[in-house]
Amino acid sequence: MEEQDENIKFSINDELIESVEQLVDSKDDNGILDLLTEYHYADIAEILEDLSTDQASYIIRLLDSDITSEILMEMDEDDREKILATLSTKEIAEEIEELDTDDAADMIAELSEQRQEEVIAYIEDEEHKAEIRELLTYDEDTAGGLMAKELVRVNENWTITECVREMRAQAENVTRVHSIYVVDGDEKLIGRLSLKDLLMASPRAHISTVYIPKVDFVDVNEDAEEVARIMQKYDLEAIPVVDENKVLVGRITIDDIVDVIKEEAEKDYQMAAGISRDVEADDSIKKLTIARLPWLLIGMFGGLGAASIIESFNDSMGGFIVLLSFVPLIQATAGNVGVQSSAIVVQALANNSLDGNILKRLFKEFLLGLVNGVAIAIIGLLITHFAFGTPYNISITIAIALVAVIVMAALIGTFVPIFLDKRGIDPAVATGPFITTSNDVFGILTYFLIAKFILGF
Amino acid sequence: MEEQDENIKFSINDELIESVEQLVDSKDDNGILDLLTEYHYADIAEILEDLSTDQASYIIRLLDSDITSEILMEMDEDDREKILATLSTKEIAEEIEELDTDDAADMIAELSEQRQEEVIAYIEDEEHKAEIRELLTYDEDTAGGLMAKELVRVNENWTITECVREMRAQAENVTRVHSIYVVDGDEKLIGRLSLKDLLMASPRAHISTVYIPKVDFVDVNEDAEEVARIMQKYDLEAIPVVDENKVLVGRITIDDIVDVIKEEAEKDYQMAAGISRDVEADDSIKKLTIARLPWLLIGMFGGLGAASIIESFNDSMGGFIVLLSFVPLIQATAGNVGVQSSAIVVQALANNSLDGNILKRLFKEFLLGLVNGVAIAIIGLLITHFAFGTPYNISITIAIALVAVIVMAALIGTFVPIFLDKRGIDPAVATGPFITTSNDVFGILTYFLIAKFILGF
Repeated sequence: MEEQDENIKFSINDELIESVEQLVDSKDDNGILDLLTEYHYADIAEILEDLSTDQASYIIRLLDSDITSEILMEMDEDDREKILATLSTKEIAEEIEELDTDDAADMIAELSEQRQEEVIAYIEDEEHKAEIRELLTYDEDTAGGLMAKELVRVNENWTITECVREMRAQAENVTRVHSIYVVDGDEKLIGRLSLKDLLMASPRAHISTVYIPKVDFVDVNEDAEEVARIMQKYDLEAIPVVDENKVLVGRITIDDIVDVIKEEAEKDYQMAAGISRDVEADDSIKKLTIARLPWLLIGMFGGLGAASIIESFNDSMGGFIVLLSFVPLIQATAGNVGVQSSAIVVQALANNSLDGNILKRLFKEFLLGLVNGVAIAIIGLLITHFAFGTPYNISITIAIALVAVIVMAALIGTFVPIFLDKRGIDPAVATGPFITTSNDVFGILTYFLIAKFILGF
Repeated sequence: MEEQDENIKFSINDELIESVEQLVDSKDDNGILDLLTEYHYADIAEILEDLSTDQASYIIRLLDSDITSEILMEMDEDDREKILATLSTKEIAEEIEELDTDDAADMIAELSEQRQEEVIAYIEDEEHKAEIRELLTYDEDTAGGLMAKELVRVNENWTITECVREMRAQAENVTRVHSIYVVDGDEKLIGRLSLKDLLMASPRAHISTVYIPKVDFVDVNEDAEEVARIMQKYDLEAIPVVDENKVLVGRITIDDIVDVIKEEAEKDYQMAAGISRDVEADDSIKKLTIARLPWLLIGMFGGLGAASIIESFNDSMGGFIVLLSFVPLIQATAGNVGVQSSAIVVQALANNSLDGNILKRLFKEFLLGLVNGVAIAIIGLLITHFAFGTPYNISITIAIALVAVIVMAALIGTFVPIFLDKRGIDPAVATGPFITTSNDVFGILTYFLIAKFILGF
């Protein structure tokens, strides 16, 4: 963003936060208004997230609800919930009145069930009230949960002039006009009209002669991730939503989809890092522990499994005790290869870009593992033998084990996500600690079996 | 997408690919046209990615360039390059003529420098040619590299009627009209006009009386990721781009930003999985090896470092050789905790949502590590002592080492990404194998030092 512009976005730094805190603590309402009037609601949301809940509530009460409703929607869910808890039912209803139906329904859904009813009862606009009630009936992970009721809808029998007149009325409720949806007498979606077409058509033409009968749409029960995939693939900025009778019931815009895409990517990333639900750095220690401990336990059981494998070979190992020193090398290599292989497959599955059949894919990973394995094994052989002075037969054992373990880890890392995906399980659970742990255990077992075979203990 | 719609998207399965292959091999042009006419360009792109380059080229030559240009842009970069290599300069120029300037410049940028000049020389539309030349001068990771020249621009001195007339002419070149940008006599950006405002204003009003002087914009040299952050934060579907004199030079739309966001998320994810550059599952083994081998080498050196630590304790360990069996447990735990901590910090840094100072953050991780560590240690103590029959003093040693290693790994996993970020280095490099390897080595060292102290060997 340019600095010399009058519409400047000041950076949000500690000094700014401190001045806001001082103004709130001294209840200097005019000072707060003067200071914050310069800022976009997204910036004010960021400022409020750095204040205490009481200070943030004070500012929310002070500013107009047309801007505070946007500020609240822009905030972290946790911070928003805390502020809403300090507001009266009537105050929340005022915020809801300002929001588009999709945001309004999202905000209400975060309240307790009893409070939801109280807030809805306070909403004055009957149409808004009915639309929010309808949206609350949809699962949040479906098209119905993403869509807004605000859209521009015209009847196929209108003329362009009638259409423009109607649109002027409808547009007052719609923040952004993307497409104009054309419906028949039964309110069924039959096509669309671009703003460009509208601008370029003769005013007396009938909609039925100029509209485009090809229109992408999704069912109200369609999965949110599938909606995201469709909108991305077909480069759509908005998509209409229909019910089972093809009646137009809402529309989804690309900005909601951007959030779905980001959340999905973050979820996969966290899964790969061994964090089992959506958490943020600022969450409580309890929430973070619940998300992290299960994966650590999996890792621990893997480690204990490895310990019992080592102990079972320990007694017969005799003079080859030096093999134990290289367990971490085998383990780290197996873990790393497994994560690499699984990450690529999981990403390809998420993007629907995995071509070919499983066997072809596994054969490719086999070759890839062989190439990487031989490279690592040769370097490992040279270093252990010449730098560590490890006896030749043991260095050879380690080198062969490295190749075997890398190939095995690559195959497991590739096969497990594909297998899970075929069974309808999110393949992302197979990344991170899960794949690392299984490869640790298999890797160490393979290592000792190969050593036993070569060294003959 | 609904199945009963006439605008149906058939699923792309092996049977469909086979029929297309047969039609191409028997040069049944009408059959190909009949079959593919039902499909969206994004679907055809998917089909072509499953064909051989020759088969795909055949179809590209057969279909009209208004659709093939879209198909080509939708394909994987690698597949597109292979097809472009089979087309003549003139054929490529025909595709370019159909594309918006941003896509056209992207496609040309993928050709060899000599071929770029040849293709540009073939473009007939002089304005399109000059605009593409201009776009090629910008770095692809900047606003200039993302923007298109197609936009609707009106002068502040025009009336609404003049404006609509001009817009009709301009709109023919613009696929989607997002905002109308208002410029002064020097072509400097001074504001915007929404389509809604245009619909609702009196036809005789002057633009200068109805336009909105507040407009977000970015500099042509702004970093692409920063543009993505701004557009997301301020919920923008398009943003105008200006040069150093504030002259309007282009606009960026949200669909280009969706790609930037996805690529960024995938890059971080791959980095966390130990894959050092942007690769896909279908890339060549050579490309995949170059992306993966460096991280395996880091892991290997960590493993060898761990081996020399173990060897240095080996001699003095005497009767406590059983400690070696639990090295994988210590290592797996340290690695998992490190990845968890670093992933959360890296994600928070990427989202600009990391509040508070470093010390506070480290203290929180210390507490979190302590909670997780004590939980893991107690379970570990019980299992090793009662299930494995490990002597009490050794079980205690392992438990204490687990707590220490978890706390340490959590602190390293948190500190390193923050430190790198402050130094201007992408913190994502600190996730995955890098953090796992350093925690492996530190973890094993800590384990043996604690054992030496408690057991006194």
